[in-house]
Amino acid sequence: MSHDDCKAWCYSRQNPVVQPLLTDLYQITMAYAYWKSGKINDYAVFDLFFRKNPFQGEFTIFAGLEECIKFLERFQYSDSDIKYLKSTMPSSVDPGFFDYLKNINVNNVTIYAMQEGSVTFPRIPLLRVEGPLITVQLLETTLLTLVNYASLMATNAARYRMVAGKNITLLEYGLRRAQGPDGGLSASKYSYVGGFDGTSNVLAGKLFNIPVSGTHAHSYITSFTSIDDLQAKTLAHKQTGEVYDLLELASKYRDAIAGDLGSIVSEASSGELAALISYAIAFPERFTALVDTYDTKSIEASAKQNTFITSINVKNKLLNKGSSAHTQNGVRNNTLISEPTSHHKNGLLRRGELGELYVRSGILNFCAVALALNDVGYKAIGIRLDSGDLAYLSNAARDIFERLAIKYNIPWFARMIIVASNDINEETIISLNEQSHKINCFGIGTHLVTCQRQPALGCVYKMVEINGQPRIKLSQEVAKMNIPGKKNAYRLYGADGYALIDILQRSTEEEPQVKQKVLCRHPFQESKRAYVIPTRVEPLHKVYWKNGKVCEPLPTLTQIRDRVQESLKTLRNDHKRNLNPTPYKVAVSDDLYNFIHDLWLQNAPIGELS
Amino acid sequence: MSHDDCKAWCYSRQNPVVQPLLTDLYQITMAYAYWKSGKINDYAVFDLFFRKNPFQGEFTIFAGLEECIKFLERFQYSDSDIKYLKSTMPSSVDPGFFDYLKNINVNNVTIYAMQEGSVTFPRIPLLRVEGPLITVQLLETTLLTLVNYASLMATNAARYRMVAGKNITLLEYGLRRAQGPDGGLSASKYSYVGGFDGTSNVLAGKLFNIPVSGTHAHSYITSFTSIDDLQAKTLAHKQTGEVYDLLELASKYRDAIAGDLGSIVSEASSGELAALISYAIAFPERFTALVDTYDTKSIEASAKQNTFITSINVKNKLLNKGSSAHTQNGVRNNTLISEPTSHHKNGLLRRGELGELYVRSGILNFCAVALALNDVGYKAIGIRLDSGDLAYLSNAARDIFERLAIKYNIPWFARMIIVASNDINEETIISLNEQSHKINCFGIGTHLVTCQRQPALGCVYKMVEINGQPRIKLSQEVAKMNIPGKKNAYRLYGADGYALIDILQRSTEEEPQVKQKVLCRHPFQESKRAYVIPTRVEPLHKVYWKNGKVCEPLPTLTQIRDRVQESLKTLRNDHKRNLNPTPYKVAVSDDLYNFIHDLWLQNAPIGELS
Repeated sequence: MSHDDCKAWCYSRQNPVVQPLLTDLYQITMAYAYWKSGKINDYAVFDLFFRKNPFQGEFTIFAGLEECIKFLERFQYSDSDIKYLKSTMPSSVDPGFFDYLKNINVNNVTIYAMQEGSVTFPRIPLLRVEGPLITVQLLETTLLTLVNYASLMATNAARYRMVAGKNITLLEYGLRRAQGPDGGLSASKYSYVGGFDGTSNVLAGKLFNIPVSGTHAHSYITSFTSIDDLQAKTLAHKQTGEVYDLLELASKYRDAIAGDLGSIVSEASSGELAALISYAIAFPERFTALVDTYDTKSIEASAKQNTFITSINVKNKLLNKGSSAHTQNGVRNNTLISEPTSHHKNGLLRRGELGELYVRSGILNFCAVALALNDVGYKAIGIRLDSGDLAYLSNAARDIFERLAIKYNIPWFARMIIVASNDINEETIISLNEQSHKINCFGIGTHLVTCQRQPALGCVYKMVEINGQPRIKLSQEVAKMNIPGKKNAYRLYGADGYALIDILQRSTEEEPQVKQKVLCRHPFQESKRAYVIPTRVEPLHKVYWKNGKVCEPLPTLTQIRDRVQESLKTLRNDHKRNLNPTPYKVAVSDDLYNFIHDLWLQNAPIGELS
Repeated sequence: MSHDDCKAWCYSRQNPVVQPLLTDLYQITMAYAYWKSGKINDYAVFDLFFRKNPFQGEFTIFAGLEECIKFLERFQYSDSDIKYLKSTMPSSVDPGFFDYLKNINVNNVTIYAMQEGSVTFPRIPLLRVEGPLITVQLLETTLLTLVNYASLMATNAARYRMVAGKNITLLEYGLRRAQGPDGGLSASKYSYVGGFDGTSNVLAGKLFNIPVSGTHAHSYITSFTSIDDLQAKTLAHKQTGEVYDLLELASKYRDAIAGDLGSIVSEASSGELAALISYAIAFPERFTALVDTYDTKSIEASAKQNTFITSINVKNKLLNKGSSAHTQNGVRNNTLISEPTSHHKNGLLRRGELGELYVRSGILNFCAVALALNDVGYKAIGIRLDSGDLAYLSNAARDIFERLAIKYNIPWFARMIIVASNDINEETIISLNEQSHKINCFGIGTHLVTCQRQPALGCVYKMVEINGQPRIKLSQEVAKMNIPGKKNAYRLYGADGYALIDILQRSTEEEPQVKQKVLCRHPFQESKRAYVIPTRVEPLHKVYWKNGKVCEPLPTLTQIRDRVQESLKTLRNDHKRNLNPTPYKVAVSDDLYNFIHDLWLQNAPIGELS
């Protein structure tokens, strides 16, 4: 078996690092102590849940279920695992334990879970894991690892999708900033689940069938010094096959449009032109160009006093020519008029102010090549902006595209795509939306994959029942208490179709009924109660694993991705908004309320004062 | 080949996800465009470096080199990779390119690198990668992925080590909060490199030969309801083999010491006692117990008005009995005297105030079992605190241990280990140090593995030379400019043995000489210059990969770990301190300074004003 076959073999199932030893040592030491104390037949129920929604939001997307189930399918300690454990644990450990461990399996484990891709909330178990105490304890860390980051990432991606709106393309570009190789793969996978459209990560594309995308880096541009570096200059016409000199065409267009852009041909980089022509020859049907490589030319000369003037001049030029075009076109009028004030509010140059220099080199060269391509039968795709003031630059670029579309009577030119990719996060997108921009696509890396705003979800795995007896873990903080006993969860919907409340009940209670009054209580605050009359009742858990078998069909990644959007649609906007969202209510039934509080008092004896 | 063999096979080399397709698509599209434009024989030099130290610090630890080299050793596109790329790239791509890609190898690539585990600084290349343009471009993303998180994590761990001091044991507990399975593995590996002593992650232990550690979770305690759950109660004496009833012994001790602890036996949990006895029977030589499971008993009854009084009473009791013990012992006197004021400063109960309730149940039960174990010939290891006011609780626990050590004349009892593990970060440790504590070991999870304070390092990979011509990427921000050309780096040491400055030179310059004046210049600020007379000159780069072979022995993980501490020792404390550290200087030679600035002016033509 070659290494490649091996990789394929491993991956057809799951990342090979997901295995029983991917756990905390204390799970194994506890297993031994349980075994040693004769607790082999103890039967336990654990809830896997989180206590607080991430990112100061009020919802979470549940993800990672398929990986949990695949982990169970393959759960077995190998001989080398046992050998390692023997060498690690004290020599006093009874050898019988290792035989026990070698033969342990998960056939007696039952897993109830929410549907992967569902919107979920604090305290609602994402998984309920039942089975022999030792076995279910041994599953803890791996299940947490598989659910925690997957859910955090999917939630983060879903939040980006919400602020960007459904018409914007979102691409994940974070591989190089992820927590190592597999962190990068998980990021690509779960950002797709959360609503991204694709990734730059080729292996993620191959393994998970996610669309991949990418153009070129600045280094591509800088690897060309001048026109002399251009070895191939020709391209055959898409339809006729006639061979054209792309350099000649592009140079002609560059001269013809420089005035429209307020650019000066001599200031544009000829290395950049060469690079773009070569790229267009390689990808005539997918020509997208990074246009900010030479964004800073002449900074030295003009940064302090001159650029301000220059930029105003450039803007006025755009404005004069642009506004007439706009008026003719009947579209947005004078988008740029407010720019000078907003951008130079305090008479200060802000970062990105110099971006109009793009116009001089990058956008000029790009438009020249795109117009040349048009003559050869190809439609360019668009540009990528990787620095500067993205709102201003996207408006300026769009304005240029629109004017050239009219000038040359090629309407598609106005609709070319503008990709932005410089350190984007949720707040940047919100701010860009407020300023109004013409970006069609965001490429998002660091902030997305590291979940910078909150890099861990904090799921926990708590025992709620053992041998039929409920277990409560009291805590100084009420928020940290778990809800004891085996429970079912339901989502109650209102007449408007939106989810109203999630309710946890004891597993022995009857399911809430449509059109019947359900008393919903806050789990810890006595006086917080409400009657709910649901128009729809959705049981939130299904059995996914029982008797050593998968019991529910596992959806494809695309289906999970669709589920996320459907599930989010059932949530009122005030729960989803970025600023001060309304908490969604998670309640307990009256029966469960009394059960919790009886147990609480029972377990909290009255102190004695001395 | 079994799945296990396969895993072993894969891992003997490297995580199988580290492969050429673990990259951004644009590397492949650029490769095609280069190929298509006939740039097959172009030769490029790239620097991999970062621009800013993480965590508001002034140093970074370089890690991930071994993984980079292993990646090169195996660099080859597989047939299935090529098949996937064919299906993904436009159909117009010349099939000859795929043949080229299939046969590409890294035999003509040369990698210069810093030693793994070295302290390093902004702008100094961690790697210098030279070779055919297309090949070195194709390496970019994977190299960045392998270096970025590894270095960030090692740096984070080294910072924890510094604030904790060298006598504290540091354990990484972050698997469940890491960025997925492999994120967890990388975290364990590189926190060990940075100075941690071990991990809870068993697979990391197995794969990387890192010490693993762990005891039990709260669920272990709560799985025992009462003494009746205790099936085995006996333990044979370590030396004599005589069988003892551990329950009887522990119960006897519990009655005997409750008064010393200010505890009331009836308030201690008997389920907890049963759990601890069972755990001691399983691990008599490694008995460590989590003592905060029943930390909150009687909160309901006493939280608002009574506990304050109770806690003061408990403290006074400790104080009265404790201080005489201390005086006898001649050790720290009245550690607890200042506690009531500092803890109840404003007459308010703070989180953790109720922690003395540990004393009532957890610590009482632990001490009873530890004393019982002592009668059977075993020495208990210690306790773990997972909630509450860790400074106060560790002092209280140590005080109890010390008094019982005297009472029973067992000096080792005073030295038992106290592990703390609740949401620890750098600031918590600093704050605990200020308050004075008696913790011997920190178990650190979320904040360590997610690098919460700064979850990405931001290494970049920039072309600095092509076909012998230097390349400069100008930027609006001077900090974002790269230093062009092929460079060597040296560290100059002063007479006191500390590192004074790092200097970058053109590769054609002569090495700085010991005891000879070296003019060091700020790369961008003309007037910032200094003469340095080094007592030692350390070349920072070695060739690690050339002609398809590894050229330097790759150190073991432990050697890299040692290197980190040695390297940090050469750095003055003011560069390493947590608050407002002094920036370490990174300079350029006069020759390089002039070279940069000539090139800058050459590339930044004078703008024209209209």
